[in-house]
Formats: sequence, structure tokens, C-alpha cells
Amino acid sequence: MQNPNENHVIGVDFGSDSVRCLIVRTADGREIASAVVAYPRWKAGLYCDPAGNRYRQHPLDYVESLERCVREALAACPPEVAASVRGISFDTTASTPALVDRTGTPLALRPEFAEHPDAMFVLWKDHTALEEADAINERARRRTPDYTLYSGGTYSCEWAWAKMLHCLKHAPELLGTACSWVEHGDWMCGLLVGDTTPERLARSRCMAGHKAMWHESWGGLPAEEFLEGIDPLFAVFRGRLYGQTVTGGTPIGGLCAEWASRLGLPEGIAVGMGAIDCHAGAVGAGITPGTLVKVIGTSTCDIAVAEYDAIGDRAVHGICGQVDGSVLPGLVGFEAGQSAFGDIYAWLRRLLAWPLQRLGGDPELEERILGALTDEAMRLPLTDEDPVALDWHNGRRTPDADLRARGAIDGLTLATSAPAIFKALVEATAFGSRAINERLVEQGIPVERIVAIGGIARKSPFVMQTLADVMGLPIRVLDSDQACALGAAIFAAAAAGVYPTIAAAQQAMCPGFSAEYRPDPDRHAIYDRLYERYKRLGAAQRGE
Amino acid sequence: MQNPNENHVIGVDFGSDSVRCLIVRTADGREIASAVVAYPRWKAGLYCDPAGNRYRQHPLDYVESLERCVREALAACPPEVAASVRGISFDTTASTPALVDRTGTPLALRPEFAEHPDAMFVLWKDHTALEEADAINERARRRTPDYTLYSGGTYSCEWAWAKMLHCLKHAPELLGTACSWVEHGDWMCGLLVGDTTPERLARSRCMAGHKAMWHESWGGLPAEEFLEGIDPLFAVFRGRLYGQTVTGGTPIGGLCAEWASRLGLPEGIAVGMGAIDCHAGAVGAGITPGTLVKVIGTSTCDIAVAEYDAIGDRAVHGICGQVDGSVLPGLVGFEAGQSAFGDIYAWLRRLLAWPLQRLGGDPELEERILGALTDEAMRLPLTDEDPVALDWHNGRRTPDADLRARGAIDGLTLATSAPAIFKALVEATAFGSRAINERLVEQGIPVERIVAIGGIARKSPFVMQTLADVMGLPIRVLDSDQACALGAAIFAAAAAGVYPTIAAAQQAMCPGFSAEYRPDPDRHAIYDRLYERYKRLGAAQRGE
Repeated sequence: MQNPNENHVIGVDFGSDSVRCLIVRTADGREIASAVVAYPRWKAGLYCDPAGNRYRQHPLDYVESLERCVREALAACPPEVAASVRGISFDTTASTPALVDRTGTPLALRPEFAEHPDAMFVLWKDHTALEEADAINERARRRTPDYTLYSGGTYSCEWAWAKMLHCLKHAPELLGTACSWVEHGDWMCGLLVGDTTPERLARSRCMAGHKAMWHESWGGLPAEEFLEGIDPLFAVFRGRLYGQTVTGGTPIGGLCAEWASRLGLPEGIAVGMGAIDCHAGAVGAGITPGTLVKVIGTSTCDIAVAEYDAIGDRAVHGICGQVDGSVLPGLVGFEAGQSAFGDIYAWLRRLLAWPLQRLGGDPELEERILGALTDEAMRLPLTDEDPVALDWHNGRRTPDADLRARGAIDGLTLATSAPAIFKALVEATAFGSRAINERLVEQGIPVERIVAIGGIARKSPFVMQTLADVMGLPIRVLDSDQACALGAAIFAAAAAGVYPTIAAAQQAMCPGFSAEYRPDPDRHAIYDRLYERYKRLGAAQRGE
Repeated sequence: MQNPNENHVIGVDFGSDSVRCLIVRTADGREIASAVVAYPRWKAGLYCDPAGNRYRQHPLDYVESLERCVREALAACPPEVAASVRGISFDTTASTPALVDRTGTPLALRPEFAEHPDAMFVLWKDHTALEEADAINERARRRTPDYTLYSGGTYSCEWAWAKMLHCLKHAPELLGTACSWVEHGDWMCGLLVGDTTPERLARSRCMAGHKAMWHESWGGLPAEEFLEGIDPLFAVFRGRLYGQTVTGGTPIGGLCAEWASRLGLPEGIAVGMGAIDCHAGAVGAGITPGTLVKVIGTSTCDIAVAEYDAIGDRAVHGICGQVDGSVLPGLVGFEAGQSAFGDIYAWLRRLLAWPLQRLGGDPELEERILGALTDEAMRLPLTDEDPVALDWHNGRRTPDADLRARGAIDGLTLATSAPAIFKALVEATAFGSRAINERLVEQGIPVERIVAIGGIARKSPFVMQTLADVMGLPIRVLDSDQACALGAAIFAAAAAGVYPTIAAAQQAMCPGFSAEYRPDPDRHAIYDRLYERYKRLGAAQRGE
């Protein structure tokens, strides 16, 4: 083993809007430097249609931003650091897949499709593939075992098969060229080791298991007959998909010469398989069985792990998925989450900023709205008569995925103020978290402690205290703004052999906690009753 | 009969925020002059608590504003007009009652209670008497016939008995002095004829019947034993209430010397009984059987009349009331309405103006919000997936009064914009109108045409077109901004004997129409489906 004191690793966190490069010392996880670069085309609003829930990202946004942010982070380090970097890993959003040609190149990198939204990466929150998801679910339910068994019982329109089918169906001009598809994270690894050929590309267990119905019990991906039975178009992928997957921290090759030069890193250092961003975040947060790690940002992702012996092949219903090894090798990983969390507060901010934007007020005021709402909302009394909202503005991911579910606000009076609506929306997001927790516990996944990471966990004590009061559980906040990138760095450290196991790397590299929110029993009792109103309102909307 | 060419009459319209004096020529109803004066204490927000739904008005607001506005209107006329005024009548909000002493003086005019909210008029929209209304309903349902039979089956917390009991219960210091109560409109008439003594005060059939369960079939008001069975406090009124009532247009006396001098009008001219504002508006709009007159403003009031032979004593369930002679003598008058209409748009305006008010933006922008929302909302597509709202921000008045009902908005996504919410709220108010119409028709009250009056009818083509599209009926808008004051003037003309009947006065004095909105069949078909969502959402909220 190399001497940890002399080693550094890089974790690269591809988020929804920007990419972050984190350079850490392997000895103790200390951050040496970091840099963030926003995706330029995405920032300009290109290729997207928010009203139609279409969100696409150009592969050049990833490539250019990666190069810039690694170079910026290295530039902020002492000069000897670059040469001491032993490995690099990624975490990305998922499912964020793209159609590729036979060299594994996303179609939008070919000149003829450079401006074609269906030739780009389809961002996790894109909901254009509702019909395709319906068709997949309908077909899956007709066979035994149902391929959605380990995906919570419902295949989501946010996931790869639905999205790729949607692109093929809506862009016949791509059919002659598309011959496989890649997840964003898998493609980044392939790019850095210098080979993206679909037949050889290493595929992440985490992404394959949670987003593409990959499961060992049925030999990997769903059978070709099944896929082609949904739509004959799936035949374009025949023979160019995959059977094997690798877990996070697996070394998949050495950094190729081209990318060593582009990034300013030593050629041949370990490129390690990463994971979906929230799974990497859970690793960075030091996840162990019994801990629920909540990644709380624009949406939430909730991650738990359990010993295989405790759960076996029993399927947990109504959550996003359970995959052996998706978080940590040797443990079953569970993923759940809310399709919108902070996005709902941002929606209210945009709503309230409408006069400023439309009538020529000072648009700078918009940035101050959420702070002012928080100041007033935290002083409002809590009563059984308060407005109650549903947090399904972006559909419901878990429990029981239903992308047609919608947000709602009930209990409005002429005196209902903007802060009261903000309070109701914050409570609604907390109720959504509580529903997920209750489902996990009901199904035998123990939740003994909650660790929160993500922007909202760090920045909004009001939201976090409400969450603790609603859930009736203490919540600790990790003392890091970069848990996902840190998790990727831990994978990189394991891939590079700096530590023998991921657990050993976590032990050395994970930070402590910056805050703990304890539930107020009186408020929890009122929230028990408001939560019943939340459940009734939701059941009524869905005709349950 | 006097020569109509030489005669003028005055209609005085006491609204929620201000009083309007309208001087018209009796020959053709032409407006000679008008003036509006805002209630000064009300404007300053005194005695009210919007968060607690407490809205009180000081009697001095009425007295001072009346004097100013009649004098201002006369000052705008040729000098000979004042001497040619033959009569004056009022329309007022209702139920807007006040406790009075043994001279019929509202308690707040006594120095010791001058600042006491429970000694003032309790404005129609005050909802502090919820518990008292429950007690009245509970007791009424135990006897036969139920006294609420002709009040739609539910006694509202907006009505006199509940409000007066609330004041007595919450202000024991008033008990030694309070000995009767008056409606605002009755008190104005008594004041002008120089005698407000409770035992002699003329009481409006319209207000007594619609707001105080007065009905001929049980000999007038509910029996004293009944009232005192609800609460022994009602005994303070014993012997100082009333049995008889008079219909609109009945002459109740001559203008007394004091008020002739204060107003600048000839002593002894006719003071005619008026009506509740919306009933007067229906008279001003030329109501006849088969016409539904909708007064559309901050709330709505819907008025219909029918031949007694067509309806008899059959009770129409779930509307505010049916009273023989409440609108026109000899016809049964029906009242229904929505507790909030324009108030809901104003709520959204306030909500969206919150950042301007709170963060130091230009508060002038607030006045432009509704116009800008309208511009954008009218360009939005209409689809089955649109957000759907409930118009119960101020409770539900009809059908089926439920003051605990609340507003709601369902079907929200992260892309739902402020104009989309405005559109949903406009549609919700139209759905509320449709529900009333359907109830009337179901119960055998024909609605063959709709005439709209009120601020929104005149000012918002977007709202009126939506209303026509939702209801599937053409709507004509009266060519007058002052239908209620005109109705009061018609009552004055009848009371003064300028015309032999109210119908004859209407024939001569009512204006034509300024606009007609015809329903679009395609939009109506979509609204049929959205209306089903509205009904389901409402049923779910109320646990139905």
C-alpha cells in the first residue's frame, strides 16, 4: 500500500446544473481544492422545454465543464499535488442516458445531430417518456417474475429504457445511427480510459440495477424478447448491451494519454467506477446499516443499506429500487426519494417574483424572497387549521411512483399569506419524507438514525427543524458541502488501492456532523394530525 | 301622479368600503350626479382583525359618509335639483347588524362603548360567530318546522342572530345597555325619519326574511322560547323585537327636519324602505321571473324571483333563502351567492405583492398585477390537465352553506405560473357560480337568462367570458356601474308615489346592456370535465 500522507484523489460530482471537482488528501479526506463549473448550454436554457418537462443536456456541456473544473481545481493547489493524484471517480445524476453510435459516442457529438435534443443526454428529471414507461410497466406485469420487482413495482418515466425508447420513437432520423445507450456516469469512465465501445464499456451496478432493471436473478438486463415485445425499436440495441456490471470503487482502467493531457493529471492513474450522485453521497456520509442518508436539495434521494442476510431477495414495494452492491459492495442498497423538494420552494419563489420579472420591479429582490419567507414562516403558529400541501409538483417518486401526481394546496383563506404557503410547502416536503420513512420501516428496513446532506440540509435550519418535528426523529447534518464528490473520491481511493476496502476509506476520510435537529414532541403531535390531512388530500387527488 | 320630468330621487348605496349617492331623474333613470365617500375609520383598518375574520364598522362611518356624499352629489347638480328631490332610499350590505340601546342607538354611539368592536355594526363578511351559528342550527333542527327551512337549511355565521349572540357573549359589559338590534339599512331609515325606537322601527322584509328567519308561516321571527333555548342571553331582546316587516319601496315616513338640514334636502320628502344591496341591484337590473341577476364583485350575490303560484311554500334547499316580497312585492325572492369572488383575485394579488411590500420593491406595482395576470391568463391554452381550484377562501355560502370550507389549488407542477394560478382561480369562481345555477334549476327555479352587474361584470371581459364558457349560458352586462343605487332610487320613486308600482318605475328607469358574452362550445366541453374535477376536489375536502 502507498503512503496515504502523500496521496490525493479526485472526486468529480456531475450535478443537475454544474460539475464540481474535489481534490482531497487520502489520509484524512481533507479538501485541498475544489472548483465548480456550470454547464454553459444548459445555463442558456438550450434544448429544454420546462412546460413540457423536457430536460436535455448536451454531451459537450459535460466534456468542456469537466476539463475546466479539474484544471481550475488543480490550479488552486500547491504544484506538487497534480503529480500525487492516484485516482479519479465520478458521481452523476441518473438515470441520465444518451443514445450512442457504434463507437459509444453520444449521437449529439456527431455533426448531423449536434442540435438534436433526442441525441443528447436525457436528464434525470425529464418526464417526456410517460407513455413509454406505461408500456414497459404493462408488459412487465404480464410476466413472472415482474422485471420491476426490485424497482419498487413501477418502472419510472425518469429511467433509461423509457427515455431511450421515447427518443427512438420520436426521432426516426436517429435509427440508422443509434446502436446502444450509455448512462452519463458510465460514459465518463469510458471516455477517461479511452474506450467507450458499447460492448466493452464498464457499466455501473448502481445505475444498471436502479434504473435499467438489471438483476442477477434473471441474468442481468431484461431479455431482448421482452424489450422487443414492448417495441420492436428496441432491436437496434440487440447485441450491444451488457450482462456484467461493476460496483463503485472498482478500478476500470488507467487514465488515457489524451485525457491525462486534457486534465493535467498523470497518465495511467486509476479510473474507478463511481455511482449515482446520492449513492456516492451516502458513501461520503459514512453510511452503514440502520442509517438513512437523505440527500436534500432540489429533490431528495434517500439511501439505506442492509445486510443481504436480513433482506435476501425479498422485494421492498413502492420504493425506487434495491440493488445488491449499489452503494457498498456486499450490502443491499435501497434508494427512495422525492421528485421535488427545494424545487418546490424555488417554484414559490418564482411565483412570487412574477410581478418583479413581469412588471419591471427590481429582479434582484427575487434572491431575497426565500430568506424573508423563512424569517416569517418560522414565527407563524402551528395549528390544526393550517393550510396543508402536497409535494408532488414534479410527480411522486416514492412511495409508489406516480409521475402523474400533482402538487396541491388546501385550507386556503383570504388571510393566507405568502409565508403561510411557504410553511405549508416546507411541511409538505417533510410529509413526503415521512411517507418514505414509514414505508421503509413497514417493509423491514430499519431506520435508526438519519444523516442529512445536500444544500438544504446545510443551509436551512427552518426546513431541517420542520423535518425533524414532522418525522419525529433526530437528524444529524454532515459537516460537508460536498458529500457526493467526497464519496466519489472515496471510490477513487479504493480503486487506486490506497485503502483495501471502501469501508476503510470511509473510516479515514468521512467528516463529522455540523448540526443535530431534535424533534419537539408538541409540534410532532400536531404534525401527526396534519400528516393525516396530507394523506387524505393525496388519496383524494389520486382517486384512492 | 306628479310630472316625472320635474322629479328626482336619491338612491344611497352603502357598500363594504364606501357609500355612494346617486341622484337620478325619475322620468328615465338618467344619472344627474353621484358621489362616493369612503368610510374613514374602516379605511384606516380600525376595529378589524382580518386573520380572525373580524370585520366591524363604526356607525359614525355611516353617518358622516352619508352626509358628505349626499352633499357632494347635490353640489354637482344644477341648483334647482335639490328642491325637486321627492324621495330617498337605501341599499346596504346585510346581514350587518348592531346592538342598540332602548332609543335604538347603536351602542358604539354611546361614549362608554365608542371604541368597542362588539358595540358596532358587524359587517356581512365577519365570521366570528361560527360557534353561535352552530348552536342555532343545532336547535333549529330539533323542531318542526325547522326555522332554517327558508334559509337554505343552514343558518350562517354571517347572519344577525349568530352575530348578535356572539357580541352579547363576548362583551358582558354591554348586557345592561343592549336591548334590541337593528340591521344597518333599517337603522338608516329610522334615523332619517327621526325615530329609531326599536318597537316602532320599520324592518325590511328583505333583511328579516333572508337573515333573521322571519317568515309569515310561523308568525314572523322565531319564537322567544326558541331563541332563549339557544342562549338565555337572547332574553335581553324580549319585547323589543318585531313581528311586521315592510317590502322595498314602502314609504315609511317623511324626512325629519334634522336630517333635511344635514343633507340639504326638503323636509318631509319620502323615505322609502330599501333592500339588501344585491336585491336592490336586481331591481335596478330590471329583474323579472326567469332572469338570474348576478352581482359580481368582491363576493357574488345571485338573485332570482318567481311567481308564488310556481313555488308556493316549497323550500328550495341549500341556497341562502327565499322570501316572499324580498325583491319585488308579490313575487318570491331567492338569494344565493359566493362568499368570495373578486376577493379571491385580490388575495392572489396580495400574495404576489408580498415581496414588493416586504422587501422594499415599488408597492405601486401591486395595482398593475391583476391587469398583467389577465393579459397572460387569457392567452393560456385550456386543457384537461390544467390546475383546478376551489373558490372557498371565505367559506362557501351556496350551495349548502359551509363556512368552514376552504380554498384549494390542485394540479400544480413546477411549471405552473402565476397566470396559470390566476386562470384556475377565475375558473374556480365560475365553477362556484355554475354550482349555484345548477342547484336553482334542479329545484325548479327557472334560469333562462343571466344579467350581470357589479364591478367585475363591468371591468373584466376575461372573467365574464370564462363565466359564460363555464356556465354554458350567455350573460348580458347591465349598462350601469350603479345598479344597486339605481334600485334604491327606484324604491324611492315608488315610495314617493312618482310611479304607481315598482314594475312601472323599473320600466321607465332601468338601463340597457353594455355587453353580452356568449359561451364557446369547445371551451364549454372542456369546462364540463374540469368542473367534475372541481366537484371531486370539493367533495374530498369536505369528506363527502
